[in-house]
Amino acid sequence: MKRHLISAADLSRDDALLILDTADELAKISERSIKKLPTLRGRTVVNLFFEDSTRTRISFEAAAKRLSADVINFSAKGSSVSKGESLKDTALTLEAMGADAVVIRHGASGAPHRLAGWVRGSVVNAGDGTHEHPTQALLDAFTMRRRLGPLDGRKVTIVGDVLHSRVARSNVLLLNTLGAEVTLVAPPTLLPVTVDSWPCEVSYDLDSVLPKSDVVMMLRVQRERMNAAFFPTEREYSRRYGLDRDRVAKMHDEAIVMHPGPMNRGMEIAAEVADSPRSTIVEQVANGVTTRMAVLYLLLGGADLGGEIQ
Amino acid sequence: MKRHLISAADLSRDDALLILDTADELAKISERSIKKLPTLRGRTVVNLFFEDSTRTRISFEAAAKRLSADVINFSAKGSSVSKGESLKDTALTLEAMGADAVVIRHGASGAPHRLAGWVRGSVVNAGDGTHEHPTQALLDAFTMRRRLGPLDGRKVTIVGDVLHSRVARSNVLLLNTLGAEVTLVAPPTLLPVTVDSWPCEVSYDLDSVLPKSDVVMMLRVQRERMNAAFFPTEREYSRRYGLDRDRVAKMHDEAIVMHPGPMNRGMEIAAEVADSPRSTIVEQVANGVTTRMAVLYLLLGGADLGGEIQ
Amino acid sequence: MKRHLISAADLSRDDALLILDTADELAKISERSIKKLPTLRGRTVVNLFFEDSTRTRISFEAAAKRLSADVINFSAKGSSVSKGESLKDTALTLEAMGADAVVIRHGASGAPHRLAGWVRGSVVNAGDGTHEHPTQALLDAFTMRRRLGPLDGRKVTIVGDVLHSRVARSNVLLLNTLGAEVTLVAPPTLLPVTVDSWPCEVSYDLDSVLPKSDVVMMLRVQRERMNAAFFPTEREYSRRYGLDRDRVAKMHDEAIVMHPGPMNRGMEIAAEVADSPRSTIVEQVANGVTTRMAVLYLLLGGADLGGEIQ
Repeated sequence: MKRHLISAADLSRDDALLILDTADELAKISERSIKKLPTLRGRTVVNLFFEDSTRTRISFEAAAKRLSADVINFSAKGSSVSKGESLKDTALTLEAMGADAVVIRHGASGAPHRLAGWVRGSVVNAGDGTHEHPTQALLDAFTMRRRLGPLDGRKVTIVGDVLHSRVARSNVLLLNTLGAEVTLVAPPTLLPVTVDSWPCEVSYDLDSVLPKSDVVMMLRVQRERMNAAFFPTEREYSRRYGLDRDRVAKMHDEAIVMHPGPMNRGMEIAAEVADSPRSTIVEQVANGVTTRMAVLYLLLGGADLGGEIQ
Repeated sequence: MKRHLISAADLSRDDALLILDTADELAKISERSIKKLPTLRGRTVVNLFFEDSTRTRISFEAAAKRLSADVINFSAKGSSVSKGESLKDTALTLEAMGADAVVIRHGASGAPHRLAGWVRGSVVNAGDGTHEHPTQALLDAFTMRRRLGPLDGRKVTIVGDVLHSRVARSNVLLLNTLGAEVTLVAPPTLLPVTVDSWPCEVSYDLDSVLPKSDVVMMLRVQRERMNAAFFPTEREYSRRYGLDRDRVAKMHDEAIVMHPGPMNRGMEIAAEVADSPRSTIVEQVANGVTTRMAVLYLLLGGADLGGEIQ
Repeated sequence: MKRHLISAADLSRDDALLILDTADELAKISERSIKKLPTLRGRTVVNLFFEDSTRTRISFEAAAKRLSADVINFSAKGSSVSKGESLKDTALTLEAMGADAVVIRHGASGAPHRLAGWVRGSVVNAGDGTHEHPTQALLDAFTMRRRLGPLDGRKVTIVGDVLHSRVARSNVLLLNTLGAEVTLVAPPTLLPVTVDSWPCEVSYDLDSVLPKSDVVMMLRVQRERMNAAFFPTEREYSRRYGLDRDRVAKMHDEAIVMHPGPMNRGMEIAAEVADSPRSTIVEQVANGVTTRMAVLYLLLGGADLGGEIQ
């Protein structure tokens, strides 16, 4: 496995399976009510967030603390970074302060890649622009595997604003690596122009895709982007691409519904669907901590999990 | 004891005494220079603050850390919460992330109660709207008991803007449970319309109440609410309801002066009174950490205090 | 050694050498890949920041955590402090909450000194107005000593906006204590009127000073202050007082280049100079954590370093 996790494309099939298997092992340890492992004691994880994302930041913070790492939160807002310090100088600063891993969230696609060129520690991409969010894809894959078993040949449908979604891109790449078959469903204006080169199918008709889907993953609608898009109103979007009870009825019995959160209930997903037994939305959050523990553990080469449990 | 601490009214006399006795025990441990106990190691306490309140947040953070819990601070400002995520989804997120306790501060009365309906962990109300602030009442009772002994029959006078004060409401409820006799002194416009149903007396004449008070608790004046109230000026308020040296001279020798902080020195309380030996204001802050340690310890069922001291 | 670190002038030569020697010892421990020491376990360090300074805050936070102290970050923005609570009441609050050390950054010169009058714990000045920043001076001295050996008789040139620089003032005081000879180079309008009483030389000609300097320390230009100053443009400033390749060529072979960061690359320092082997800029950041560990360890009287290493 590489030293950094910048893109889902960095992960070989073996890498991805190792992360998922490690997460499985961590989940089992957690089920035995062992909530804290000493494996990363003395290591420092810096959360370097140039964009607000409390949920992702907390998830990484919880993951690192459960492995006994020290966590330093660095919100770039209001810092010298926002006053024009270069990303390189910030990187060198964190490096010099002894960060073993830097978890970075940045508005510019490619920022984590550049950061990785400057530091000896591990860089984990926690979302860069509209580019990638690989740990989200890993937690989604982990969630699917726990519900459905191995992903080879599984049919995953991703619905909504693919154009602006780093979640969609990372999922397509990782799911392809893991042998699943992905179909994107979105208004044409909300698909990237390069989508032809992505390893997936595209459809504009949600209802026809639902019956053969094992997983339906709804993306968050960015309301502020709706004006510029294909649909005049939220209601029209919801009618064409929202997941309500009637649509869920077309899915087969084992199929699951996913959403990366935060949801717009009543918009891309009906409240009753979000709260139904098919929904994995709450599991995804819990699995997010577990999967990020696995990523930090593997990247930082923590002490053996089996032998040192508190 | 219940799993949550939402209202001072949730506490039976036995519950309240158990918390105060536990706080006593913790204070004794602290006096032996043992500053950190391992009892909540591996537990996670989330501070979920929808309103700024650095003092209260720090007090809970210090309390949890002294019990070796991991603490995650979640300021709801600028987070997806403020972008319209429902409190329910936030609750499910924290739950899924493994929060053993959520300490919530919220501008809306009743928010902690709703939160408690959605999570398996313990919810601690750190102030909701103008409703309640039960740990403030507990630390106040703990402070009174340390100075004056058992509270049965003690006379406590609470002075100021009762209408907007969650501190006043929680104190009235808890002090009544503990057998003290409470008198509220406030301008009529700063009393709640339901005050007749509260288990306390009401007076409009501070000077006549002072000689028989064992405790005089001054409330913070919210300057921004003064315009809309009975008094034209701060000076007039101070003259009628402020506690200065002349008024303190009417109190009996053992009587104490309390204030939840932050104070407006020179407004509701004179600087010389705030700094006098009668004043418990600094003790209240220290007791706040100790009392919150007791609350977290009891709610989370920490390991035995006696056997595991570091 | 005193209980507080408010000014570089507080440090006797023996005090300063003790801090530098302790930092040396800590650096050696760190080089043996021991990243966390138990010496301050159970102690609480509060970072009380009235001004944004993410770099300094993180440096102190990392230092305290590596010594196993609990760290509480208290950003005064948006807190009751900013709503008019007095610094004294904030101090009493932190004291009562059990802060063993308060690291304070404040816009007003003298605030740390006042704070020290109100608390029993140790106060560390992390920058007050244009007054002092003693730990910056200590880390700079530590960096010079590691590169050049003992500082007695060494020639240190400090270049730029001395008038607004707490870094310059603290460095002049400490370097004088340690036996170095300091020369300030700045436009006359960016020198304090009291500079005649400082224990250093003043020059207006950078090029003539460079050949005899062992250390050239560039200060950060505060762009917002340039308009009011001597120079009409940044370019003109850079031409007269910036450190570029041509100027570095005038320095002797062993001489080093320092900068407290964050840099304006291309303004007071050329990018190629900042990244050259002479530059200690990244070392300064790493040494900042080590030096602050030494300061906290010595002020708080931590357990013996030798005997308790994890």
